[in-house]
Amino acid sequence: MTAGLRSRRTADVPALVDQATEGNARAVARLISLVEDGSPALREVMSLLAPRAGHARVIGLTGSPGVGKSTSTSALVAAYRRRGLRVGVLAVDPSSPFSGGALLGDRVRMQDHATDEGVFIRSMASRGHLGGLSWATPQALRVLSAAGCDVVLIETVGVGQAEVEVASLADTTIVLLAPGMGDGIQAAKAGILEVADIFVVNKADREGADQVVRDLRYMQSLGTQSPSQAKVDGKWVAPILKTIAAKGEGADDVVEAIERHGEWLAATGELAARRTRRAADEVEAIALTVLRERIGDLRGGDALGLLARRVVDGELDPYSAADELVAAVTG
Amino acid sequence: MTAGLRSRRTADVPALVDQATEGNARAVARLISLVEDGSPALREVMSLLAPRAGHARVIGLTGSPGVGKSTSTSALVAAYRRRGLRVGVLAVDPSSPFSGGALLGDRVRMQDHATDEGVFIRSMASRGHLGGLSWATPQALRVLSAAGCDVVLIETVGVGQAEVEVASLADTTIVLLAPGMGDGIQAAKAGILEVADIFVVNKADREGADQVVRDLRYMQSLGTQSPSQAKVDGKWVAPILKTIAAKGEGADDVVEAIERHGEWLAATGELAARRTRRAADEVEAIALTVLRERIGDLRGGDALGLLARRVVDGELDPYSAADELVAAVTG
Repeated sequence: MTAGLRSRRTADVPALVDQATEGNARAVARLISLVEDGSPALREVMSLLAPRAGHARVIGLTGSPGVGKSTSTSALVAAYRRRGLRVGVLAVDPSSPFSGGALLGDRVRMQDHATDEGVFIRSMASRGHLGGLSWATPQALRVLSAAGCDVVLIETVGVGQAEVEVASLADTTIVLLAPGMGDGIQAAKAGILEVADIFVVNKADREGADQVVRDLRYMQSLGTQSPSQAKVDGKWVAPILKTIAAKGEGADDVVEAIERHGEWLAATGELAARRTRRAADEVEAIALTVLRERIGDLRGGDALGLLARRVVDGELDPYSAADELVAAVTG
Repeated sequence: MTAGLRSRRTADVPALVDQATEGNARAVARLISLVEDGSPALREVMSLLAPRAGHARVIGLTGSPGVGKSTSTSALVAAYRRRGLRVGVLAVDPSSPFSGGALLGDRVRMQDHATDEGVFIRSMASRGHLGGLSWATPQALRVLSAAGCDVVLIETVGVGQAEVEVASLADTTIVLLAPGMGDGIQAAKAGILEVADIFVVNKADREGADQVVRDLRYMQSLGTQSPSQAKVDGKWVAPILKTIAAKGEGADDVVEAIERHGEWLAATGELAARRTRRAADEVEAIALTVLRERIGDLRGGDALGLLARRVVDGELDPYSAADELVAAVTG
């Protein structure tokens, strides 16, 4: 039964990829499921997708819980749709409404009924079985880009390393803040000054919004003197915009800022550099997984066990044992 | 200067290892520093140590902050010293008093003045540059075991995955609890029932200690019916002991329980199994690091960059690029 299911799926792959590149929402959803599941069919999927990779602009959206990431994403989607662009959304955030199975189900079903809708929304588990954001997200990006998305928004909660990860995946990273959340201090702590290409202060009608803007400007004024900022080519200084996402106010300004950043990226060669770095990270992660699996296969057999027993008995030190293991893997 | 320092160090390695195996505290400290630094000399160190690996019993001590881990460790050290045994302590806990540079410095200096003291105490950063506890700790264990320690205590705070990691390194794992910390619920949550070979309820003179014991017994009664408990050979049921570590009360009972567990480990073959598993984990971790370094070397060159650009241009999918990278690493 399982074998039958697998072979059926594998047989479907070229057809699925064709349908996905024609913009079929169900096919897109199934391909992203293959990505999330780490399916063996992924090799074939990625091989078929490579020549039709598309040219989606990848926008990262990050911020602390409560700053209005989902609302801002919705407002941006609406702004892009008004421009007639196709938009993909990857919500990598367990606390986001997009991640709610039911709501997401509704949206997916809605797309099934209107495949020309021009919006793909997908929630992804923040930590996949193979290392999370950095592993699965680039491949989901490929699927959405090949499906004809002009823009893909990756929305993720800015906690821990997530905002650094999303910045490494995105062409343009937007850091969202909101008044009354101690964001000024938080910003300095988490090093978001380093990752932000655009700052958006949301909930700008609330008290303290101007103070957040002033805090950011002050930190930027310090930051431009630091070596890590000085190394930026052509001196992109992240603009600070104000929005009221719940009312849709300011979303067009954000889209314009993204476009200006895109022009800067292209003019300085930074776009190619970022995308090459991203691909190198992805290739390296896959290669390490392949090597880890080979070691795992050896572990399933007796080779590693024999080496380990010799280490326990003091016949072999762990480095020499590792050398033998590496030789077995690479032999 | 740096090259001179390195060659001097490398030349010292056989002498250092000789001194360490004779129990010289300064030599032991320097070898563990090499471990922590991931020094290139480690290969030589481990190769020299392998035939004189020693036979230290490895005891893991874990528990939430505030249960009295450091006090309990001190009480156990005293109990072992009364039996005339040599004891090593690895405190892998940033919040532990042992980790305080000054105090540790004092203890190390104290040892330098009395190398026959029979106690080595060493704090280690909980997360090293190569993956932390699971990487550096086994090698530090080797050093202490070769230095003639009969017992090595690994003390670590039971947060996140730490207690699982310490259990994977230890022959016998002690889980410490204390009244009034909601430990009952915590225990069930963190799965410490699975890792504990011995439970110690510390601060037994405080209100609620008996309730903690009853909660543990109740959870054990549920646990023994679960498949994961049933698989344990020879049915070791973790004893539940009460101590007042601050007064040294109960430490001898804990040492006796450790001895009984040691007899059980030997009788069932579980000791050899645990140590082989530990060595296999260590060898695997080193092998993966070697492979990661080889990829890193390629990244330093242009091979990965070229592959990445072909991925960006859609000439190559990331899996095929990874295959080429793996071939380059293993060729």
